[in-house]
Amino acid sequence: MPVISTRGELMPASPIRRLAPLADAAKARGIHVYHLNIGQPDLPTPQVAIDAIRNIDRKILEYSPSQGYRSYREKLVGYYKKFNIDVTADDIIITTGGSEAVLFAFLSCLNPGDEIIVPEPAYANYMAFAISAGAVIRTVTTTIDEGFCLPKVDKFEELINSRTKAILICNPNNPTGYLYTRKEMEQIRQLVKKYDLYLFSDEVYREFVYAGTPYISACHLKGIEQNVVLIDSVSKRYSECGIRIGALITKNKALRKTVMKFCQARLSPPLVGQIAAEASLDAPEDYTNEVYEEYLERRKCLIDGLNKIPGVYSPIPMGAFYTVAKLPVDDSDKFCQWCLESFEYDGATVMMAPASGFYTTEGVGRNEVRLAYVLKTEDLKKALVVLQKALEAYPGRVLE
Amino acid sequence: MPVISTRGELMPASPIRRLAPLADAAKARGIHVYHLNIGQPDLPTPQVAIDAIRNIDRKILEYSPSQGYRSYREKLVGYYKKFNIDVTADDIIITTGGSEAVLFAFLSCLNPGDEIIVPEPAYANYMAFAISAGAVIRTVTTTIDEGFCLPKVDKFEELINSRTKAILICNPNNPTGYLYTRKEMEQIRQLVKKYDLYLFSDEVYREFVYAGTPYISACHLKGIEQNVVLIDSVSKRYSECGIRIGALITKNKALRKTVMKFCQARLSPPLVGQIAAEASLDAPEDYTNEVYEEYLERRKCLIDGLNKIPGVYSPIPMGAFYTVAKLPVDDSDKFCQWCLESFEYDGATVMMAPASGFYTTEGVGRNEVRLAYVLKTEDLKKALVVLQKALEAYPGRVLE
Repeated sequence: MPVISTRGELMPASPIRRLAPLADAAKARGIHVYHLNIGQPDLPTPQVAIDAIRNIDRKILEYSPSQGYRSYREKLVGYYKKFNIDVTADDIIITTGGSEAVLFAFLSCLNPGDEIIVPEPAYANYMAFAISAGAVIRTVTTTIDEGFCLPKVDKFEELINSRTKAILICNPNNPTGYLYTRKEMEQIRQLVKKYDLYLFSDEVYREFVYAGTPYISACHLKGIEQNVVLIDSVSKRYSECGIRIGALITKNKALRKTVMKFCQARLSPPLVGQIAAEASLDAPEDYTNEVYEEYLERRKCLIDGLNKIPGVYSPIPMGAFYTVAKLPVDDSDKFCQWCLESFEYDGATVMMAPASGFYTTEGVGRNEVRLAYVLKTEDLKKALVVLQKALEAYPGRVLE
Repeated sequence: MPVISTRGELMPASPIRRLAPLADAAKARGIHVYHLNIGQPDLPTPQVAIDAIRNIDRKILEYSPSQGYRSYREKLVGYYKKFNIDVTADDIIITTGGSEAVLFAFLSCLNPGDEIIVPEPAYANYMAFAISAGAVIRTVTTTIDEGFCLPKVDKFEELINSRTKAILICNPNNPTGYLYTRKEMEQIRQLVKKYDLYLFSDEVYREFVYAGTPYISACHLKGIEQNVVLIDSVSKRYSECGIRIGALITKNKALRKTVMKFCQARLSPPLVGQIAAEASLDAPEDYTNEVYEEYLERRKCLIDGLNKIPGVYSPIPMGAFYTVAKLPVDDSDKFCQWCLESFEYDGATVMMAPASGFYTTEGVGRNEVRLAYVLKTEDLKKALVVLQKALEAYPGRVLE
């Protein structure tokens, strides 16, 4: 039997995937599982998007252009303008989800062995795409005690060497919900400029900013326009993760030309998804406002509730719909598993993502979990009660 | 400005893409362009697939499972059974087009520097995916004079070394339309077994076999079940290239586990595409028969027509909807460009794919083109007249 590739062996198996069968087993035992682990919003997709799909009037579901439909890209220009992101339709390449945008950015910018600096905790799949591209992720650790703010410049510079080719940020952040400040973005800008690095900026949660001030996009930073690669996706903002439509946006023409070669190889992004995504841009303002208000309320419910549980601490996340919280437990991997295997309260339990999957530094974040607030407030309240009871009953509880 | 990756530089730009702006310019001059260059069928998508999309009744277009919906995979089991391909739903992983299946097969099976043997002329994007994965394609050349039949075992064995990890075939073949015989498949089986190689078998054209006998799938070969990776796609058989649904199928459980890690990283294949693809399996037998009869007639029209043009030769392809033909020209790249830039007959010209893009061996196939018969018979006839006139007028004509 021929052997598996080395990178195949290296690819991380998602920690949530490891827990999924345990959740299924709990459900099979009749236990209700509150899913605080997932990034799939429960809110409806805009009706205009569903309608656009239902009204498809074509005889052939043919290839679309490799860079995506021009009509969609032109319409996106107006969308980005609302966030003071000044791009043209030519700057935008439509991808199969944000995932493909990350992969194509890595393949186009990085040689095997090249290094990317990423603040951790970080979205676990960045590591998977880096392994796919043979690139190496080096992390600067942010800590819950400092509210996950960006480490000082010297922490980055300690990691920079001749193989360092890029910095990758996710803003607002998954998993922490952290929103980078203007000062932090300026710090990143200076680093990118000084060392002529690529800046991959994953901003798929820009609709979910609770800070009162607009978020600072990497595209707002002056003097590094040729270095910035914006990663985007409609998945979260329109609750349409399944249509697999994202975008890679850059002012760097040589880079776009290269990315297009990867796009042409895979022929085209999904046709029907583009139709839905283009229609979503016409979602009424009410849609966006209602979604925003809903998350605002859920955030308050979850964060307040968490901080009321003895021994639990969560910073107040200023964006996205996640938080990373510290629990009074020996090991959050064990605790999350135990919740699904050995615990129930009032016929229910909770599923959370152990934070270990978001750190590459060994042993860091062992008492942390990521919680997503993609459940209705009433369910979040019940889940918080179950979590509190679970922490009281857990044999590996650690007293402060 | 940071530099582009080496593999980005190496990625081939499609020769057809180079001609596309010339075709647009010809159209802008009011010239009708007969597209003999493309692989997008003009036949309708099954109505059941369009209806399934139009009847979508969901509030949320959510992630689907990373391996694809079980209902779809279970239904595919019955589809493959019709071709005596005996697989279970667990053996099937749904991918974003056949393209992703090729990429994930390469990433999972090959280390950078590992070699894949591919008979050429070959689908140009295999090279792109090999470059993406850092793998190396080595080609055994098949020739038009031998009807593109498989070279003898020794030609393969000359290329086999410690880095050789796989053989890749496309059967029926794009670009030649060649259908591998039982004897040739047995030859491949023995090579795969003797050297314990992977066999990547791209069989997306299995519906289009005109030989009277059923095609031999790599899955029919005994004793190499753990080595075979079937690459599939619904694009061609249901004329739904835009939905981006393919499959990677293997009995090799360790390999599936690895492929699944790449699948989980990109989260899920397109949701709406899977709905269309699943519905397509219910297309009436009439649909398949009509499509088949249509291609049969077109093939006869194109091949007979080509062979009647002085100096032109095409073998009779036994599968797919392409042929590679030899033209009496100095250089088919130049000829194809000249047709678009400097020629018209009765207000029309032809666009073809120069075969150079399908060969890696320098200088081979320089007087060959790939022609797809995805036009109506009446248009094919007109295109053949235009081609004949073009060959008569072309300054680089070569007399035999």
